[in-house]
Amino acid sequence: MKTHLEREIFEQPDVLKRLIQHEDDHIAHLVGAIRRLEPQFVVIVARGTSDNAARYAQYALGSLAGLAVGLATPSLTTLYDTTPRLDGALVIGISQSGQSLEPTRVLEQAHTHGARLTLSITNDAESPLAQVADHHISLHAAREKSLAATKTYAAQLMAIALLAGHLAGIEQWKPALARVPEWVAQTLALNHATRAAAARYTFMTHCITLARGYNYCTGFEIALKLKELTYVAAEAYSSADFHHGPKAIVEPGFPLIVVAPQGKALQSMIESIDMLQASGPDMAIISNVPEVAARARLALPIPDTIPEWLSPLAAVVPGQLLALGLSEARGIDVDTPRGLHKITLTE
Amino acid sequence: MKTHLEREIFEQPDVLKRLIQHEDDHIAHLVGAIRRLEPQFVVIVARGTSDNAARYAQYALGSLAGLAVGLATPSLTTLYDTTPRLDGALVIGISQSGQSLEPTRVLEQAHTHGARLTLSITNDAESPLAQVADHHISLHAAREKSLAATKTYAAQLMAIALLAGHLAGIEQWKPALARVPEWVAQTLALNHATRAAAARYTFMTHCITLARGYNYCTGFEIALKLKELTYVAAEAYSSADFHHGPKAIVEPGFPLIVVAPQGKALQSMIESIDMLQASGPDMAIISNVPEVAARARLALPIPDTIPEWLSPLAAVVPGQLLALGLSEARGIDVDTPRGLHKITLTE
Repeated sequence: MKTHLEREIFEQPDVLKRLIQHEDDHIAHLVGAIRRLEPQFVVIVARGTSDNAARYAQYALGSLAGLAVGLATPSLTTLYDTTPRLDGALVIGISQSGQSLEPTRVLEQAHTHGARLTLSITNDAESPLAQVADHHISLHAAREKSLAATKTYAAQLMAIALLAGHLAGIEQWKPALARVPEWVAQTLALNHATRAAAARYTFMTHCITLARGYNYCTGFEIALKLKELTYVAAEAYSSADFHHGPKAIVEPGFPLIVVAPQGKALQSMIESIDMLQASGPDMAIISNVPEVAARARLALPIPDTIPEWLSPLAAVVPGQLLALGLSEARGIDVDTPRGLHKITLTE
Repeated sequence: MKTHLEREIFEQPDVLKRLIQHEDDHIAHLVGAIRRLEPQFVVIVARGTSDNAARYAQYALGSLAGLAVGLATPSLTTLYDTTPRLDGALVIGISQSGQSLEPTRVLEQAHTHGARLTLSITNDAESPLAQVADHHISLHAAREKSLAATKTYAAQLMAIALLAGHLAGIEQWKPALARVPEWVAQTLALNHATRAAAARYTFMTHCITLARGYNYCTGFEIALKLKELTYVAAEAYSSADFHHGPKAIVEPGFPLIVVAPQGKALQSMIESIDMLQASGPDMAIISNVPEVAARARLALPIPDTIPEWLSPLAAVVPGQLLALGLSEARGIDVDTPRGLHKITLTE
């Protein structure tokens, strides 16, 4: 019998197709409204997996739409009751369930603090977060039954990619955006052996994921899936930050998962791989560049035609399969991992 | 013979005193310039320890000065050559050495992208970062010889606290700011046993630090010191984020270092401690609240009179002593930990 997690990982291409069908026109329309209000910067409120989608938005909206994106510190609102001024801001709340209290509180108060526009991205159009926002993007992912989010993360990235694509002038990107579901399906096929290969990590207690630029989010999301589903103390690092101290922990055999697809961050990732290789780590590398993948103990392929800015949608998939496979190797029931609840009502 | 690290940890009260003496008036003057230009939001560029000082600024400037503070994604400038618009922004670069390429590149380009004002915070007024900024705050920490930053981190927090205090109207906060060097000295005295107590962690491979609000930075900085100096895979989490999944990794005996001083984040930290205690972790707790400290296997005290917004200056100290003591217990040469260079020129 398949687990919810497994089913939902493999549902991702269909979810993305559905999202594009239902939301492409709506997002085009929404982008008209955003352009009219000319927001000067973006603040995103999110926790957990949704926070990783927010990290993607920092690059996608930053690079394609020229918008500086900051991740909110929601405690300023919920604990200290001192929401900073948001004059000129577009405030976005991202939450799978839309039940999370923090983004709802921040979006509710955003206009009184000067925000120009609020937008929510959730899988439930009836949720409190969807209700308080000026605009809402639905994820169309159907109910996510697994406690660990996979298909809703993919859908959140897709919603942000559509938003960035439309803001940048969609015509140039339309064909690439339409191909994302196919690239994700190809990634699932290319990684048919990854789930079984995960058994090599059965006795791993901790590891580091490294990524940079657009795939910074991918490193964080893979680390989060490993923690949630396999109880490995996996920590994500920007390869740039990692060299500011943390790399001291790398010793022979230290497990690293490196995200290094084709693109502008690749050269920097190759330099990191070269520098770290001297310490003899055990590297898994997610890449579509054969020479880079060749340096890995475990190579995790993604399609070679995907542009860098859309690659996070594919690059996370081998990580999801690794977490699934490792949970199986360790005999963990992935649909009820200890300590997880589908909706987390932190305030 | 004392190590540089040890000497610099104990130098911190003097460094802070010197910084206040030399920079208080200058920062008051600088705040006048900032007020005249009315920045709408703040973007901070920093890596490593300086990034943790930037995390402090998110709360101090956010809560006291009402300024939304985003941490920059410098790769947008250095890798993608697509610096987002910075209309209305105050852009701050923080770097101990001022030699880091990223903040220098971002500050150099900030005005062409619309920034109202640029400010650098470094320990070297002659450094490239100090030279490119409109304004500069010097840390007056004397040369930091240890590879792991301690006294310059304290000085960065102090510079930010002075900036936030002046922006909020300094009169109210002047007496508290002036007492910070004394509170840090008291913390060193209160933790006279912490360095030796660190030996209990000799065989720890990984751990999690938990904090929230003002001390979010403290959790990150302690985790970074543990990684740099003891090679423990220490990861920092906001207690709010931790409950969105990662807490699944906590099992009996799992080492947690919790930062929970008096203040508005305390109730939330107590709830976290209560929830996690069911899983039987091994908790060290940094607190000035006796009932909270009583729940710890290892209680790490800080002075009870320090206000929450200044408590990060004290709360990091037990963590520095823990990292120092653990490096000694493990026989690591703290002045030349593997893999560290004083200046990291990531681009």
